Amino acid sequence: MAQLNSNYLKLKAGYLFPEINRRVKAFTDKNPDAAKRLIRCGIGDVTEPLPAAVREAMHKAIDELGERASFHGYGPEQGYEFLRNAIAENDYRARGLEVAPDEIFVSDGSKCDCANILDVFGHDNRVAVTDPVYPVYVDTNVMAGHTGEADEGGAYEGLTYLVGNAENGFMPEPPKEHVDIIYLCSPNNPTGAVATREGLEKWVMYALANDAVIFYDAAYEAYITDQSIPRSIYEIPGARKCAIEFRSFSKNGGFTGVRCAFTVVPKELLCSTDKGERKPLHPLWNRRFSTKFNGVSYVTQKGAEALYSEAGKAEIAKLVEHYMGNAKILCDAVTKSGLTVFGGVNAPYIWVKGPEGVTSWEIFDKVLEMANIVITPGSGFGAAGEGYFRISAFNSRANAEEAAKRFSELRW
Amino acid sequence: MAQLNSNYLKLKAGYLFPEINRRVKAFTDKNPDAAKRLIRCGIGDVTEPLPAAVREAMHKAIDELGERASFHGYGPEQGYEFLRNAIAENDYRARGLEVAPDEIFVSDGSKCDCANILDVFGHDNRVAVTDPVYPVYVDTNVMAGHTGEADEGGAYEGLTYLVGNAENGFMPEPPKEHVDIIYLCSPNNPTGAVATREGLEKWVMYALANDAVIFYDAAYEAYITDQSIPRSIYEIPGARKCAIEFRSFSKNGGFTGVRCAFTVVPKELLCSTDKGERKPLHPLWNRRFSTKFNGVSYVTQKGAEALYSEAGKAEIAKLVEHYMGNAKILCDAVTKSGLTVFGGVNAPYIWVKGPEGVTSWEIFDKVLEMANIVITPGSGFGAAGEGYFRISAFNSRANAEEAAKRFSELRW
Repeated sequence: MAQLNSNYLKLKAGYLFPEINRRVKAFTDKNPDAAKRLIRCGIGDVTEPLPAAVREAMHKAIDELGERASFHGYGPEQGYEFLRNAIAENDYRARGLEVAPDEIFVSDGSKCDCANILDVFGHDNRVAVTDPVYPVYVDTNVMAGHTGEADEGGAYEGLTYLVGNAENGFMPEPPKEHVDIIYLCSPNNPTGAVATREGLEKWVMYALANDAVIFYDAAYEAYITDQSIPRSIYEIPGARKCAIEFRSFSKNGGFTGVRCAFTVVPKELLCSTDKGERKPLHPLWNRRFSTKFNGVSYVTQKGAEALYSEAGKAEIAKLVEHYMGNAKILCDAVTKSGLTVFGGVNAPYIWVKGPEGVTSWEIFDKVLEMANIVITPGSGFGAAGEGYFRISAFNSRANAEEAAKRFSELRW
Repeated sequence: MAQLNSNYLKLKAGYLFPEINRRVKAFTDKNPDAAKRLIRCGIGDVTEPLPAAVREAMHKAIDELGERASFHGYGPEQGYEFLRNAIAENDYRARGLEVAPDEIFVSDGSKCDCANILDVFGHDNRVAVTDPVYPVYVDTNVMAGHTGEADEGGAYEGLTYLVGNAENGFMPEPPKEHVDIIYLCSPNNPTGAVATREGLEKWVMYALANDAVIFYDAAYEAYITDQSIPRSIYEIPGARKCAIEFRSFSKNGGFTGVRCAFTVVPKELLCSTDKGERKPLHPLWNRRFSTKFNGVSYVTQKGAEALYSEAGKAEIAKLVEHYMGNAKILCDAVTKSGLTVFGGVNAPYIWVKGPEGVTSWEIFDKVLEMANIVITPGSGFGAAGEGYFRISAFNSRANAEEAAKRFSELRW
């Protein structure tokens, strides 16, 4: 009989966001008046209009598809050169970093890339994640059969968890033991923490010494305001030999509904074959793209290219300023309510330590009931997130201000 | 040291289309005059403008994203209800077939779906493909570690190859032995053959008797002109228990550059766990979508929805008529040149038996040199394709007519 992938059955049934939706629905069904006041600061989804430069480029691209002479069918699976060149030039060369256009792979989302990257790796790698962590890193390893069962706290046997806490600024140091693959996310989802240059240097040194690979998720890079914080892992010498970088247009250009992102796989990055030879990973990822993907919509790629125009860059700056303005308003309000706040400075996420002895889900329920605000319980991101909660700064200014008012009036 | 997926190293280096491009480039570099006359009948990519109804809907969707009140960020990973409902209603309910909207998963391409579907299956399934075959089915099984090495003819150890030939109308019957997964493509790429109702009934009976799953690739369904040929495998009783159907907007709506497709996974379809329990596959595929994918662009889904409007349907009919008109012109010309032709009636591909004793690549080179036409060598689709070649009918009418003229003048 055809066998399904039984690793999927190890996944915890109650995934974070469906459980949040369930509780919100139960509450609003019972309290229709509160439902009208509801403000969502949970999921990290942008709210502001798509930049005009992007819309203009997309309109033009659609018109091109309406004429045989300018019609575009299948594009290169790895992305059009116009976009790969724009990325290489603006995100890397302009900052003195060496990334070639053919090391850039344009995709329909960072979530997909972070998930699909495991395809080109073997199954015997020791994998490390931080805790708290973006659940996709963990779940895709479970699906691929890299773990055993989960314990009561939700930690899967076989993964190495590196705890982030207030002491290490929610950016764990490299472990004492050997691991082969490390997921790092900076600016961090969910904690809003950022890796410093010194911190990243330690990680690159560790990876080079251990022949390990760093999966560097920089989807929130645009939110770095502190100039001393690296915006790309390739700012660290040696990183081209050990790091894959994930970037997205979701949070800088407001592309969560339009779908475009990219991965950088440097050609110097070598991994071991099952016979112990060292081979570059780049041709494998390239082959994966050719075989399992058909490229991103021409219309979308034209829209993404427009983000690199002067008008596009100005609109990104305005969007980031808007969301970071929200973050400041929310940080101040929550601090005023007596809680300790992390993140929210170089990242659109605010990570809050709840009152002593109260669980994340208890906080969730209380904030929902008392303030009619949806937040994300920290324990949903791992055992080390217990007692914390995340506030997303992705909102209209009016909502952020109203949410801030309610937070500042909350009595814990 | 981090290990790469060594299964990728089993893949044959010279993938079909890159090798075609290499030969075309070598020829045109040497013969600049011939280069100007070149007509591409190789890759199956549409050439005609994107339907006006689609463009209009996409323009409107972009304008919506320009206003906060109508902005769309993350959509449901499985696709918007408006599109899933339109598919369920038009492609299934209107034909008397039972497929619920939540059994439909909207994706960015059938190639991706056919590749990704393996994620939710275990690694111990016996997999059957036809020969000749769409290379993605084979290559993704190689990548997933379901095969050994390839032999000289390109056949991978561990796969079951079912030979299609003139005797069985290029639609092989179920094998005598047991297999767990079968890839069927109808209308077929590359042979242009179609599965008859009786043929499909045998396959469904086989799958039910063997607890096997059929991956039914119906990406070219719109090209079926013969009313007695099933357009969906769900026209066959019992198929909901054993078949997954792949559909695409690439070839009916001209979406090769816009990217939209869908998969149907019926809730009745059960597979075995590693403990031998029978469980539905649907929740696994749903979980895969939620975890490893972020949905198709809102703009694209709005465009796809427009294909189900009266205007959209009329434009699809015109496009299909156009390409099938090309197919007829090309079929007639090649027949006139003295060769035997298959397909090209319910499919946009024409499958031609070359002169006795001449290899597919020899034919490729000759057609390129003598007629300045790019075709696809049959052997690129598997050992059983040796001696054949494929002509794609996706072209402008002018190109199809000129190619036909040159084919009819060719002396083998």
